[in-house]
Amino acid sequence: MSGKPSTSPRYFEDFAIGDRIIAPGRYVLHEEEILDFARRYDPQVIHLDAEAAKQSIFNGLSASGWHSLAITMRLMEEAKPLGPLPVTGLGAELRWLKPVRPGDVLRTEGEVVNLRPLQSKPDHGLIQIRVTTYDQTEAPVIVQTWSWIVPKASRYLDR
Amino acid sequence: MSGKPSTSPRYFEDFAIGDRIIAPGRYVLHEEEILDFARRYDPQVIHLDAEAAKQSIFNGLSASGWHSLAITMRLMEEAKPLGPLPVTGLGAELRWLKPVRPGDVLRTEGEVVNLRPLQSKPDHGLIQIRVTTYDQTEAPVIVQTWSWIVPKASRYLDR
Repeated sequence: MSGKPSTSPRYFEDFAIGDRIIAPGRYVLHEEEILDFARRYDPQVIHLDAEAAKQSIFNGLSASGWHSLAITMRLMEEAKPLGPLPVTGLGAELRWLKPVRPGDVLRTEGEVVNLRPLQSKPDHGLIQIRVTTYDQTEAPVIVQTWSWIVPKASRYLDR
Repeated sequence: MSGKPSTSPRYFEDFAIGDRIIAPGRYVLHEEEILDFARRYDPQVIHLDAEAAKQSIFNGLSASGWHSLAITMRLMEEAKPLGPLPVTGLGAELRWLKPVRPGDVLRTEGEVVNLRPLQSKPDHGLIQIRVTTYDQTEAPVIVQTWSWIVPKASRYLDR
């Protein structure tokens, strides 16, 4: 798979282990958005109060980890990995590696690490993708493995 | 640990396997908030367009999975599991079990499933918590295992 967003549907059969998904976008994370997300979903002083955050393990204001995950989804979605088909996540395993700060610029890429049919849903398959989110210094800030349920092309041909 | 939010600090040594964290709150998820989050972070038709979503695997409008995760953090934080100390996540393993719909009412609870010292950071420990998010029918919608890095009380006593 190239790094270009796909405009036609991509089915389970279209993927191979090692395929890469390079999200084209960059996300500039401004302090106001960090504060806005934190007020709604993660209202801790480490995400809301720059002065107090200096005393914490983070040594300064940082975005909620759940915020940087949401941004990762946004960036990956812009890559249209399944074309117009919806991306349906079953689960994820993730690690936050580095705080995300006001002014950081995030980008993401993924690599297919596992593919298998789903016995419980024979017209779909499971695709696992290792997704890394990088900041502007090329340091990884989140590493994840996502599990997607993806329809098979044969599902449509058999109709 | 009781289900009551803690007002005093809770350190690594204060936890035992099997301790429960019962978040006191309920989160009513309105359609407008589902749409707002999706526009910013997960702009797929399954989260934005109720009519189109009827044709999908979800059979109707559903919240972004990253949105229900953010709400889970909000609810768990209101339980003040560490009192005034910040909750610092290292990672998570999660599964989305059921779509979250407009009007659903979410609650969460957690249970400590693992505790261990951190060799790389001797004044902190790792606490793993199994967190379940339920809807108003008591069906689990997300199950997760969170890894938190939590300071030891001895860190402060030794100063």
